[in-house]
Amino acid sequence: MIVARRMSVGVDLGGTSLRVGLFDADLPDAGIALLDSRTIRTRVEDGPEAVISDVAECIEAMVAAYPSGSVVEGIGIGSPGPLNLVMGRLGKLPNFPGWDGYPLRDRLAAVTDLPVVLECDANAAAVAEWKLGAGRAGVDSMAMITLGTGVGSGLILHGKIWHGMVGMGGEVGHLCLDAKGPACGCGSRGCLEQYASANGLMRLAREAAESDYGTEALRALVGKAGGFTPLDVAKLAEEGDASARRAFETLGSWLGLGLAGLINTLDLPLIIIGGGVASAWELFADAMFARVRAYSYVYRLGEPTQRAEMEQDRTFIRPAELGPAAGLLGAALLPSLAKPRPMVEA
Amino acid sequence: MIVARRMSVGVDLGGTSLRVGLFDADLPDAGIALLDSRTIRTRVEDGPEAVISDVAECIEAMVAAYPSGSVVEGIGIGSPGPLNLVMGRLGKLPNFPGWDGYPLRDRLAAVTDLPVVLECDANAAAVAEWKLGAGRAGVDSMAMITLGTGVGSGLILHGKIWHGMVGMGGEVGHLCLDAKGPACGCGSRGCLEQYASANGLMRLAREAAESDYGTEALRALVGKAGGFTPLDVAKLAEEGDASARRAFETLGSWLGLGLAGLINTLDLPLIIIGGGVASAWELFADAMFARVRAYSYVYRLGEPTQRAEMEQDRTFIRPAELGPAAGLLGAALLPSLAKPRPMVEA
Repeated sequence: MIVARRMSVGVDLGGTSLRVGLFDADLPDAGIALLDSRTIRTRVEDGPEAVISDVAECIEAMVAAYPSGSVVEGIGIGSPGPLNLVMGRLGKLPNFPGWDGYPLRDRLAAVTDLPVVLECDANAAAVAEWKLGAGRAGVDSMAMITLGTGVGSGLILHGKIWHGMVGMGGEVGHLCLDAKGPACGCGSRGCLEQYASANGLMRLAREAAESDYGTEALRALVGKAGGFTPLDVAKLAEEGDASARRAFETLGSWLGLGLAGLINTLDLPLIIIGGGVASAWELFADAMFARVRAYSYVYRLGEPTQRAEMEQDRTFIRPAELGPAAGLLGAALLPSLAKPRPMVEA
Repeated sequence: MIVARRMSVGVDLGGTSLRVGLFDADLPDAGIALLDSRTIRTRVEDGPEAVISDVAECIEAMVAAYPSGSVVEGIGIGSPGPLNLVMGRLGKLPNFPGWDGYPLRDRLAAVTDLPVVLECDANAAAVAEWKLGAGRAGVDSMAMITLGTGVGSGLILHGKIWHGMVGMGGEVGHLCLDAKGPACGCGSRGCLEQYASANGLMRLAREAAESDYGTEALRALVGKAGGFTPLDVAKLAEEGDASARRAFETLGSWLGLGLAGLINTLDLPLIIIGGGVASAWELFADAMFARVRAYSYVYRLGEPTQRAEMEQDRTFIRPAELGPAAGLLGAALLPSLAKPRPMVEA
């Protein structure tokens, strides 16, 4: 029998597709379970009003399957940045031409007649890992660094998502690691994103191929007519190719330097590394930890006291657990986080 | 007529001297006013128990001047780091041999029979600037960077002093700006502290003197038999010496790179620059702002929206206003910050 439920909607907005998920918000332990989901093409070219009407239709169709007493408590939406989270508007999104400044939060709320919480996708993923993934043991502050095409970050500080002054939150991916390093799309040079992203890895692989220690196999790969992917480099590295391994180690070293900066700045109890590149954890983790240790005295100070209790050597920097679904899941958790807490037990 | 008062004690603990201040905590607008203070030598060699008994005597002597109805609400103490703020203990302080691990908070509370709040001195100064100095206009998050012998930092995030995992808080002074830079006392290389501190400035002045653009006057200064001070370099720069000016500009560039990292990481609404070196603001600010702009796209994004409203170009990175007294003042503010807020209006 299908019973009336308290539900929450998550939306993961992407430049090519978007996913809408309907979740059961009534599980014990603040858990949440996917009841239904739809993935559709994002009609960027038809403009934002067309796309939010698509989203509203998905929600309506999914909710229709549940009895009329069911309540959707709210919609959480994770969007690529930059966003103005104070105003609930989009910034100038590279993959959404013509959408600049669109008041996504308020328009989606008007069309669906539901409360809407807008967050950048990196923050939504951080919330999911915090509540249900690698951070579920319970910390009230943490960072999640997402190593994807670029490097995203989400910060939870003192139990709240960190928005910062203009609602940009943290952009740890643009921490400068080398003032004379490669030019970055943000207008600066030597940003973490230039080393620890999928694009960064591909540049490091090309550099490794052309270096003294470049192997025939890696040179063949990076010279391939159809191009190559980070996965190709990972495969080669896993087969033992020394120069492909070196590319991942270099990535790990730079990532470690960035994390050392983050740890020295904030002394966080937990840093979660997610995104596609993080699935190559075994290929870069040693180099990353060596660099963190060398460049963060706060990390070294934290080791003997706190980390002994954690039983495992590498607890406080750890891989994400929820995979690519974190964004949708985190979006669905947003409405409950945004609710004011009851002053007395209901 | 001297009336009974609600008072607060601040203690600024230093390796050579310590200052104890008695403050009136009952001013409107959460203000605070110094009623009396004592500065005494820190008898480091006699051990911590002797020193806290000195502190207790100072407090007793000052309080004795007020009628018996007067209440001292608590003691705030700012100490050099590293500290374990969770346990209220000292770490391994370079200038306090034999004091390692001393439970300063609980012992001072036992001897004085008053509640004691322990903070690192950089956090105490940040609190003072936040409540009564450059941050008094009201922000709920900010950073204060203190450019002294080293570079200290204090963070206020979501309205609370940031302690971090092991109570180290932020150590922005050890953000790595150049992985191949000069060795730092913390065991890493190229830390912000190596460039933007008094010691950093002296190294930059020596480098400027020896460079192609080194002037006769700067070479004479850095070669002086009795040594030289940052103030000497500042004086020369203010007289127009090109290479002394260059030393400060180089300091400003590195400081700007560090601040760009902090802004990209946290998108803070306010960064206050204090400490002795900050008094040379006019000599390094242009270079600092140029570098912040070049290396922080979060800063650039924040400019048109937020900063236009602030009327002034440089509002969100600004010099401290309270000078060296900030540490004592901030310490005295700690007891009131630590009090639980009343749930209903009294």
